[in-house]
Amino acid sequence: MTATTLPLVPSGKDAQDAVCCAPIARQPLGEGEAAELAVLLKAVADPVRLRLLSMIGSHAGGEACVCDLTDAFDLTAPTISHHLKVLRTAGLIGGERRGTWVYYWIIPEHVARLGALFTPLVQPARA
Amino acid sequence: MTATTLPLVPSGKDAQDAVCCAPIARQPLGEGEAAELAVLLKAVADPVRLRLLSMIGSHAGGEACVCDLTDAFDLTAPTISHHLKVLRTAGLIGGERRGTWVYYWIIPEHVARLGALFTPLVQPARA
Repeated sequence: MTATTLPLVPSGKDAQDAVCCAPIARQPLGEGEAAELAVLLKAVADPVRLRLLSMIGSHAGGEACVCDLTDAFDLTAPTISHHLKVLRTAGLIGGERRGTWVYYWIIPEHVARLGALFTPLVQPARA
Repeated sequence: MTATTLPLVPSGKDAQDAVCCAPIARQPLGEGEAAELAVLLKAVADPVRLRLLSMIGSHAGGEACVCDLTDAFDLTAPTISHHLKVLRTAGLIGGERRGTWVYYWIIPEHVARLGALFTPLVQPARA
Protein backbone atom coordinates (compact mmCIF):
# COMPACT_ATOMS: atom_id res chain seq x y z
CA MET A 1 0.00 0.00 0.00
CA THR A 2 1.31 3.45 -0.82
CA ALA A 3 0.85 6.53 1.30
CA THR A 4 -2.39 8.41 0.74
CA THR A 5 -3.38 12.02 1.05
CA LEU A 6 -6.66 11.75 2.91
CA PRO A 7 -6.40 13.16 6.43
CA LEU A 8 -6.02 10.52 9.10
CA VAL A 9 -8.23 10.59 12.13
CA PRO A 10 -6.36 10.78 15.43
CA SER A 11 -5.21 7.36 16.53
CA GLY A 12 -4.65 5.77 19.92
CA LYS A 13 -4.77 8.12 22.86
CA ASP A 14 -5.38 11.20 20.72
CA ALA A 15 -8.61 9.67 19.49
CA GLN A 16 -9.81 9.41 23.07
CA ASP A 17 -9.13 13.07 23.79
CA ALA A 18 -10.85 16.36 23.09
CA VAL A 19 -12.69 15.66 19.88
CA CYS A 20 -13.66 12.09 20.68
CA CYS A 21 -17.02 10.87 21.60
CA ALA A 22 -19.06 14.00 22.22
CA PRO A 23 -22.65 13.49 21.03
CA ILE A 24 -23.50 15.83 18.18
CA ALA A 25 -26.28 17.45 20.22
CA ARG A 26 -24.09 18.32 23.20
CA GLN A 27 -22.68 21.57 21.81
CA PRO A 28 -22.10 23.25 18.45
CA LEU A 29 -19.25 21.60 16.55
CA GLY A 30 -16.32 23.80 15.60
CA GLU A 31 -15.28 24.16 11.98
CA GLY A 32 -12.16 22.04 12.36
CA GLU A 33 -13.87 19.20 14.13
CA ALA A 34 -16.78 19.24 11.66
CA ALA A 35 -14.35 19.08 8.73
CA GLU A 36 -12.50 16.15 10.27
CA LEU A 37 -15.69 14.24 11.06
CA ALA A 38 -17.01 14.86 7.55
CA VAL A 39 -13.91 13.10 6.15
CA LEU A 40 -14.58 10.11 8.40
CA LEU A 41 -18.26 10.07 7.43
CA LYS A 42 -17.50 10.31 3.72
CA ALA A 43 -15.40 7.19 4.13
CA VAL A 44 -18.46 5.24 5.29
CA ALA A 45 -21.09 7.02 3.17
CA ASP A 46 -20.82 4.45 0.39
CA PRO A 47 -22.79 1.19 0.07
CA VAL A 48 -19.78 -0.94 -0.87
CA ARG A 49 -17.66 0.38 1.98
CA LEU A 50 -20.51 -0.10 4.48
CA ARG A 51 -20.86 -3.70 3.33
CA LEU A 52 -17.10 -4.27 3.51
CA LEU A 53 -17.00 -2.81 7.03
CA SER A 54 -19.85 -5.07 8.15
CA MET A 55 -18.30 -8.14 6.50
CA ILE A 56 -14.94 -7.49 8.15
CA GLY A 57 -16.45 -6.72 11.55
CA SER A 58 -18.73 -9.73 11.59
CA HIS A 59 -16.19 -12.21 10.25
CA ALA A 60 -15.22 -15.13 12.47
CA GLY A 61 -12.18 -14.21 14.54
CA GLY A 62 -12.70 -10.48 14.03
CA GLU A 63 -10.69 -10.27 10.83
CA ALA A 64 -11.24 -11.13 7.19
CA CYS A 65 -8.94 -12.04 4.34
CA VAL A 66 -9.45 -9.95 1.22
CA CYS A 67 -10.13 -13.32 -0.43
CA ASP A 68 -13.26 -13.60 1.77
CA LEU A 69 -14.55 -10.20 0.67
CA THR A 70 -14.38 -10.05 -3.10
CA ASP A 71 -16.85 -12.84 -3.94
CA ALA A 72 -19.79 -10.94 -2.47
CA PHE A 73 -19.41 -8.10 -4.98
CA ASP A 74 -19.73 -7.85 -8.71
CA LEU A 75 -16.66 -5.62 -8.71
CA THR A 76 -13.05 -6.05 -9.77
CA ALA A 77 -10.33 -6.74 -7.20
CA PRO A 78 -8.74 -3.30 -7.77
CA THR A 79 -12.10 -1.63 -7.05
CA ILE A 80 -12.49 -3.59 -3.81
CA SER A 81 -8.89 -2.68 -2.92
CA HIS A 82 -9.67 0.99 -3.51
CA HIS A 83 -12.63 0.88 -1.12
CA LEU A 84 -10.59 -0.99 1.51
CA LYS A 85 -7.89 1.66 1.19
CA VAL A 86 -10.40 4.46 1.82
CA LEU A 87 -11.60 2.69 4.99
CA ARG A 88 -8.02 2.07 6.09
CA THR A 89 -6.90 5.64 5.43
CA ALA A 90 -9.85 6.90 7.48
CA GLY A 91 -8.59 4.74 10.35
CA LEU A 92 -11.71 2.54 10.45
CA ILE A 93 -9.90 -0.69 9.58
CA GLY A 94 -6.39 -2.01 9.94
CA GLY A 95 -4.72 -4.42 7.52
CA GLU A 96 -1.70 -6.67 7.29
CA ARG A 97 -0.26 -8.85 4.56
CA ARG A 98 0.39 -12.45 5.53
CA GLY A 99 1.74 -14.54 2.69
CA THR A 100 -0.50 -14.23 -0.35
CA TRP A 101 -3.34 -12.29 1.21
CA VAL A 102 -4.03 -9.10 3.11
CA TYR A 103 -6.12 -9.47 6.26
CA TYR A 104 -8.34 -6.68 7.62
CA TRP A 105 -9.92 -5.94 10.99
CA ILE A 106 -12.08 -3.15 12.38
CA ILE A 107 -10.50 -0.53 14.65
CA PRO A 108 -13.26 -0.33 17.26
CA GLU A 109 -12.31 2.99 18.85
CA HIS A 110 -12.68 4.80 15.52
CA VAL A 111 -15.97 3.13 14.69
CA ALA A 112 -17.11 3.98 18.23
CA ARG A 113 -16.29 7.63 17.62
CA LEU A 114 -19.01 7.72 14.97
CA GLY A 115 -21.33 5.78 17.25
CA ALA A 116 -20.85 8.27 20.07
CA LEU A 117 -21.32 11.23 17.72
CA PHE A 118 -24.82 10.09 16.83
CA THR A 119 -25.94 9.21 20.30
CA PRO A 120 -28.83 11.57 21.05
CA LEU A 121 -28.38 13.52 24.25
CA VAL A 122 -31.93 14.37 25.10
CA GLN A 123 -35.48 13.62 24.25
CA PRO A 124 -37.00 16.03 21.76
CA ALA A 125 -38.67 19.14 23.12
CA ARG A 126 -41.65 18.33 20.90
CA ALA A 127 -44.01 15.37 21.22
CA MET B 1 -40.43 23.71 1.10
CA THR B 2 -40.99 21.75 -2.08
CA ALA B 3 -40.89 17.99 -2.37
CA THR B 4 -37.45 16.49 -2.87
CA THR B 5 -36.22 13.40 -4.65
CA LEU B 6 -33.78 12.00 -2.08
CA PRO B 7 -35.04 8.75 -0.59
CA LEU B 8 -36.58 9.13 2.82
CA VAL B 9 -35.47 6.90 5.65
CA PRO B 10 -38.29 5.00 7.32
CA SER B 11 -40.04 7.15 9.86
CA GLY B 12 -41.80 6.43 13.13
CA LYS B 13 -42.44 2.79 13.85
CA ASP B 14 -40.84 1.62 10.60
CA ALA B 15 -37.53 3.13 11.68
CA GLN B 16 -37.61 0.96 14.79
CA ASP B 17 -38.11 -2.22 12.83
CA ALA B 18 -35.99 -4.62 10.85
CA VAL B 19 -33.21 -2.38 9.58
CA CYS B 20 -32.90 -0.23 12.67
CA CYS B 21 -30.15 -0.26 15.13
CA ALA B 22 -28.08 -3.31 14.28
CA PRO B 23 -24.38 -2.61 14.87
CA ILE B 24 -22.40 -2.75 11.65
CA ALA B 25 -20.24 -5.59 12.98
CA ARG B 26 -23.15 -7.86 13.86
CA GLN B 27 -23.68 -9.36 10.41
CA PRO B 28 -22.97 -8.49 6.77
CA LEU B 29 -25.23 -5.71 5.54
CA GLY B 30 -27.44 -6.49 2.56
CA GLU B 31 -27.24 -4.38 -0.58
CA GLY B 32 -30.54 -2.61 0.03
CA GLU B 33 -29.81 -1.70 3.62
CA ALA B 34 -26.29 -0.54 2.74
CA ALA B 35 -27.66 1.69 -0.02
CA GLU B 36 -30.24 3.20 2.31
CA LEU B 37 -27.70 3.83 5.09
CA ALA B 38 -25.28 5.38 2.60
CA VAL B 39 -27.94 7.96 1.70
CA LEU B 40 -28.37 8.80 5.38
CA LEU B 41 -24.59 9.02 5.89
CA LYS B 42 -24.12 11.22 2.83
CA ALA B 43 -26.57 13.63 4.40
CA VAL B 44 -24.29 14.05 7.42
CA ALA B 45 -20.93 13.70 5.63
CA ASP B 46 -20.61 17.46 5.16
CA PRO B 47 -19.03 19.95 7.57
CA VAL B 48 -21.81 22.52 7.28
CA ARG B 49 -24.55 19.97 7.82
CA LEU B 50 -22.73 18.47 10.80
CA ARG B 51 -22.45 21.92 12.34
CA LEU B 52 -26.10 22.68 11.64
CA LEU B 53 -27.14 19.38 13.22
CA SER B 54 -25.06 20.10 16.33
CA MET B 55 -26.36 23.67 16.57
CA ILE B 56 -29.97 22.53 16.29
CA GLY B 57 -29.52 19.64 18.71
CA SER B 58 -27.75 21.69 21.35
CA HIS B 59 -30.01 24.73 21.11
CA ALA B 60 -31.96 25.71 24.21
CA GLY B 61 -35.37 24.07 24.17
CA GLY B 62 -34.28 21.44 21.64
CA GLU B 63 -35.14 23.51 18.58
CA ALA B 64 -33.58 26.37 16.68
CA CYS B 65 -34.95 29.13 14.51
CA VAL B 66 -33.24 29.40 11.11
CA CYS B 67 -32.47 32.96 12.27
CA ASP B 68 -30.25 31.43 14.99
CA LEU B 69 -28.30 29.34 12.50
CA THR B 70 -27.25 31.61 9.66
CA ASP B 71 -24.97 34.00 11.58
CA ALA B 72 -22.44 31.26 12.39
CA PHE B 73 -21.69 30.69 8.69
CA ASP B 74 -20.17 32.77 5.97
CA LEU B 75 -22.81 31.40 3.62
CA THR B 76 -25.92 32.80 1.98
CA ALA B 77 -29.37 32.06 3.39
CA PRO B 78 -30.29 29.93 0.33
CA THR B 79 -27.17 27.81 0.87
CA ILE B 80 -28.05 27.25 4.53
CA SER B 81 -31.59 26.42 3.47
CA HIS B 82 -30.28 23.86 1.00
CA HIS B 83 -28.26 22.12 3.71
CA LEU B 84 -31.22 22.15 6.10
CA LYS B 85 -33.36 20.63 3.38
CA VAL B 86 -30.88 17.77 2.87
CA LEU B 87 -30.95 17.02 6.62
CA ARG B 88 -34.72 17.23 6.67
CA THR B 89 -35.16 15.02 3.60
CA ALA B 90 -32.89 12.42 5.23
CA GLY B 91 -35.23 12.46 8.22
CA LEU B 92 -32.60 13.72 10.66
CA ILE B 93 -34.39 16.97 11.48
CA GLY B 94 -37.95 18.18 11.44
CA GLY B 95 -39.03 21.73 10.69
CA GLU B 96 -42.07 23.97 10.96
CA ARG B 97 -42.81 27.53 9.91
CA ARG B 98 -44.14 29.79 12.66
CA GLY B 99 -44.74 33.33 11.50
CA THR B 100 -41.65 34.74 9.83
CA TRP B 101 -39.23 31.92 10.65
CA VAL B 102 -38.82 28.20 10.22
CA TYR B 103 -37.90 26.27 13.37
CA TYR B 104 -35.94 23.01 13.31
CA TRP B 105 -35.43 20.15 15.76
CA ILE B 106 -33.51 16.88 15.71
CA ILE B 107 -35.42 13.61 15.19
CA PRO B 108 -33.61 11.52 17.80
CA GLU B 109 -34.63 8.07 16.56
CA HIS B 110 -33.02 8.69 13.18
CA VAL B 111 -29.85 10.12 14.67
CA ALA B 112 -29.79 7.13 17.04
CA ARG B 113 -29.97 4.77 14.07
CA LEU B 114 -26.55 6.04 12.97
CA GLY B 115 -25.28 5.86 16.53
CA ALA B 116 -26.35 2.23 16.87
CA LEU B 117 -24.84 1.35 13.49
CA PHE B 118 -21.39 2.38 14.66
CA THR B 119 -21.53 0.77 18.06
CA PRO B 120 -18.77 -1.83 18.02
CA LEU B 121 -19.96 -5.28 19.00
CA VAL B 122 -16.77 -6.85 20.19
CA GLN B 123 -13.24 -6.12 21.17
CA PRO B 124 -10.74 -6.58 18.38
CA ALA B 125 -9.25 -10.04 17.92
CA ARG B 126 -5.83 -8.40 17.77
CA ALA B 127 -3.98 -6.60 20.57
